[in-house]
Amino acid sequence: MIKRIEHLGIAVDNLEKGNEVFAKILNIQPYKEEAVEREGVTTSFFKVGESQVELLEASKEESPIAKFIAKKGGGMHHVAFYTDDIKAEMARLKSEGFELLSDEPKPGADGKLICFLHPKYTAGVLVELCQDA
Amino acid sequence: MIKRIEHLGIAVDNLEKGNEVFAKILNIQPYKEEAVEREGVTTSFFKVGESQVELLEASKEESPIAKFIAKKGGGMHHVAFYTDDIKAEMARLKSEGFELLSDEPKPGADGKLICFLHPKYTAGVLVELCQDA
Repeated sequence: MIKRIEHLGIAVDNLEKGNEVFAKILNIQPYKEEAVEREGVTTSFFKVGESQVELLEASKEESPIAKFIAKKGGGMHHVAFYTDDIKAEMARLKSEGFELLSDEPKPGADGKLICFLHPKYTAGVLVELCQDA
Repeated sequence: MIKRIEHLGIAVDNLEKGNEVFAKILNIQPYKEEAVEREGVTTSFFKVGESQVELLEASKEESPIAKFIAKKGGGMHHVAFYTDDIKAEMARLKSEGFELLSDEPKPGADGKLICFLHPKYTAGVLVELCQDA
């Protein structure tokens, strides 16, 4: 079952500047920064109610975030929905005709197991499922 | 104070198809549809935890949503943060150097008072503030 918006992922070209902007908007500081080498990103997280705002800066040229920024500029990149049974949700969505970007959940930032849905079938929105690892 | 992500606004070129897609992803039906004439949009809302997913379809050609779809295709359009004192937040953000798209809160969909921040100063993200009217 989908429980909540776990986070909204926002691509920024500079994490320090992004942190300044969202610290002002939300009137709080990020609670952590974390590099995710495998994805080629450095992230920061702000707590907003039961959700997080996640900023993502590319840490290498071939990072998907670098490509996104080059193509579209900074802005909202993905939305992650929290589930307490990611494998069951992956199976349900696959049976509904969605395409999963991985067959198994992968380790993501912030201690999560994650899986993305192909945006071709999700009205142009990059949707992530996540669960605490 | 910013309390939570009130909703994530997603621009769709066809509300019926968008509703089908998000009903499958979230495994629930939208709890309402609402036309907002002044903004030139028809909207639908899905409840996800303490937040909503709002789908927006343009109802006239000069609608900002029609322009967004024509330029970028369907996808995430804005994020709305809930506050219990929108005027105080507007004043705070103005003093922080943000540009507000209206001087006073305006009536929005779903019984809210709303104000948008100019995306020029918000890292490319269209940010809405909202409060129950």
